[in-house]
Amino acid sequence: MSSTSRVDQSGGEAAAFTFSVEARDPSTDARAGLIRTGHGEVPTPVFIPVATAATVKMLSPDELQAAGVTMVLGNTYHLLQQPGVDVVDAMGGLGQFMGWGEPTMTDSGGFQVFSLSDTRRVTEEGVSFRSVYNGRPLTLTPESALELQVALAADVIYALDECSPYPSTRADVNRAVDLTGRWARRFKGTWERTARESRWFQDCFLVVQGGMFDDLRRKSVEQMVVLNPSGFGIGGLSVGEPPEEMIRVAALCCALLPQDKPRHLMGVGTPRDLLGAVAAGVDMFDCVLPTRNGRNGQAFTSVGVLNLRNARFKIDGDPLDTDCDCYVCRNFTRAYIHHLQMAGELLGMRLLSLHNVAYYQNLMAGARAAVRAERFGEWRRQIETGWEMGY
Amino acid sequence: MSSTSRVDQSGGEAAAFTFSVEARDPSTDARAGLIRTGHGEVPTPVFIPVATAATVKMLSPDELQAAGVTMVLGNTYHLLQQPGVDVVDAMGGLGQFMGWGEPTMTDSGGFQVFSLSDTRRVTEEGVSFRSVYNGRPLTLTPESALELQVALAADVIYALDECSPYPSTRADVNRAVDLTGRWARRFKGTWERTARESRWFQDCFLVVQGGMFDDLRRKSVEQMVVLNPSGFGIGGLSVGEPPEEMIRVAALCCALLPQDKPRHLMGVGTPRDLLGAVAAGVDMFDCVLPTRNGRNGQAFTSVGVLNLRNARFKIDGDPLDTDCDCYVCRNFTRAYIHHLQMAGELLGMRLLSLHNVAYYQNLMAGARAAVRAERFGEWRRQIETGWEMGY
Repeated sequence: MSSTSRVDQSGGEAAAFTFSVEARDPSTDARAGLIRTGHGEVPTPVFIPVATAATVKMLSPDELQAAGVTMVLGNTYHLLQQPGVDVVDAMGGLGQFMGWGEPTMTDSGGFQVFSLSDTRRVTEEGVSFRSVYNGRPLTLTPESALELQVALAADVIYALDECSPYPSTRADVNRAVDLTGRWARRFKGTWERTARESRWFQDCFLVVQGGMFDDLRRKSVEQMVVLNPSGFGIGGLSVGEPPEEMIRVAALCCALLPQDKPRHLMGVGTPRDLLGAVAAGVDMFDCVLPTRNGRNGQAFTSVGVLNLRNARFKIDGDPLDTDCDCYVCRNFTRAYIHHLQMAGELLGMRLLSLHNVAYYQNLMAGARAAVRAERFGEWRRQIETGWEMGY
Repeated sequence: MSSTSRVDQSGGEAAAFTFSVEARDPSTDARAGLIRTGHGEVPTPVFIPVATAATVKMLSPDELQAAGVTMVLGNTYHLLQQPGVDVVDAMGGLGQFMGWGEPTMTDSGGFQVFSLSDTRRVTEEGVSFRSVYNGRPLTLTPESALELQVALAADVIYALDECSPYPSTRADVNRAVDLTGRWARRFKGTWERTARESRWFQDCFLVVQGGMFDDLRRKSVEQMVVLNPSGFGIGGLSVGEPPEEMIRVAALCCALLPQDKPRHLMGVGTPRDLLGAVAAGVDMFDCVLPTRNGRNGQAFTSVGVLNLRNARFKIDGDPLDTDCDCYVCRNFTRAYIHHLQMAGELLGMRLLSLHNVAYYQNLMAGARAAVRAERFGEWRRQIETGWEMGY
């Protein structure tokens, strides 16, 4: 912490956001680093659970912390509709509202507008859509996405971008890249003029788009790099393309982006996706998979995916993952969690969600250690060989 | 613990069940005591959360423990259908199955057959009904209720009884009392002959019936007392009768029952019911109210019931209960829990359930302290005066 730090409005130390690469794997592009924010440190590579509506579904902040979580991501699209950013603002910002004292980030809301809304209208100004909660017309612009996220008061906020669906024509993606570039410039410009004065404990990331087109990815990277954000989102992936295509494009972006800024592969992914992207140089991930699939009865383990509804677990006295020391694996059997699933008991969803989050955290901790030990490639092969039940 | 204690099959110390009254309030019939079981101690008066299907809905064992819970009650009716008592037996019994190392009890299943099943047929032998899970025909007899509960391996188990609905004719209740008496004799006789040898760490309670008829309550008490169980359930109450009628009958039973055995008012109740029944001499309670009403958005507090769906909590930065130091009240605001309710987030139900369980535990801890201080009546009036929002 800097000696001039002071307590900011959300209770954190108002230190500047910093990122440093602390170790590099010699045989891959994997790296281990450290993000510092006003609310604490985030070792990378990091998996960031999604707190859609200011809650990582079913889990409490103390459970997340015990599972090794260091940062959560709230969805502006959902929060602006319920409870409204005015409420979150009045309650001290996202972290304080949800009882989470460690680092937070918010997205711009753009991804949800493009993926959830079938009534959207994109103009130069921004994107208009109807609330899925109450049908009310809403508009996101670069400036309003900033204003909303300043009210939500997360440590890291995101510029508005347009995410192209997969597949898209080159012309469509090119148009989206240029619009995303102009929106990023407006967002960053407004940020520089206004937000840093009043809420200088926040830092902003910009999103690289460009679909599966190398030259458009390159153009988007160039547009964003000149704006000098604190970090970069790699957007427009995990939208239906094959996994190897996702990794190829992520690797391209990482090769083009500056080495001294963190890269966040947005909305990714499976454990296999994560290890592939870490090898390509990605530092940050967020995804609903561990909690969503937990609610659907799946456990992510060192042997792959287990479906706890399967009758073979009926009298299985082992923990979900014999290789895991999380709260769930220390205290409960597969037989018990199978029973909870069959009985429709919500505790089953909760325990699976918690274990899955812990599994992701432990996987990233393993990746960090492997990078520091300069054996990421070998470690990755061992881990992936263990996944005999698949991912 | 006795010097001859040994570790029993479910991991507890196989000490005999004991109960001692340790303090009496001078101006009411309230008493404070201590139950000892092979899995630990239970100070009374005690509220026992219901773990219907081997889970206190949504809550983890460590949360229950932190909230002050010392004993949970599983429902044989549900457990015999899902996962089946063979599974619970194979997994080490109810406590070990659900990760709860402290005392447990099970009911006989009778109450659910009489309250949930519209296909039941009562004979001298027992009661037949169809599973609500799969329509399969099932029968509970005094002997099978014992066998099932021996497999579930709780510290305290219950004889099968017939619970009369409210209102019932004197003739119908009289018939049910006599049948309950004959069933209790069969249950206790089989227990003495068989179960104590193989599973001597369990202890059994018998249920007093008799509806709202004083002479039938007296007859039922006399039938049960001669069988010399470890404790008594007061059944057939909280089935629709007025609250003052419930307290009147509970007080009558307590006056008739031996002073040196615990009395359990089964399926009760609201905070107001609990204080009234403690004043009448009741030692134990179980009820789904704190968890069920938590899932419906209600908080039980020192000022009465709050409905967290109410818009007046939208920016309320207070904890659920300003007089409570539970995990929920230490970490979350009414505004946050209101938001979780409005967003349909399961964490809201979970936090309300946990707070409500803690409220009940704190209420009983207050009652115990007041009895020991010989001022239960005065303490009760203070608590009840605080409930301006009602119960």
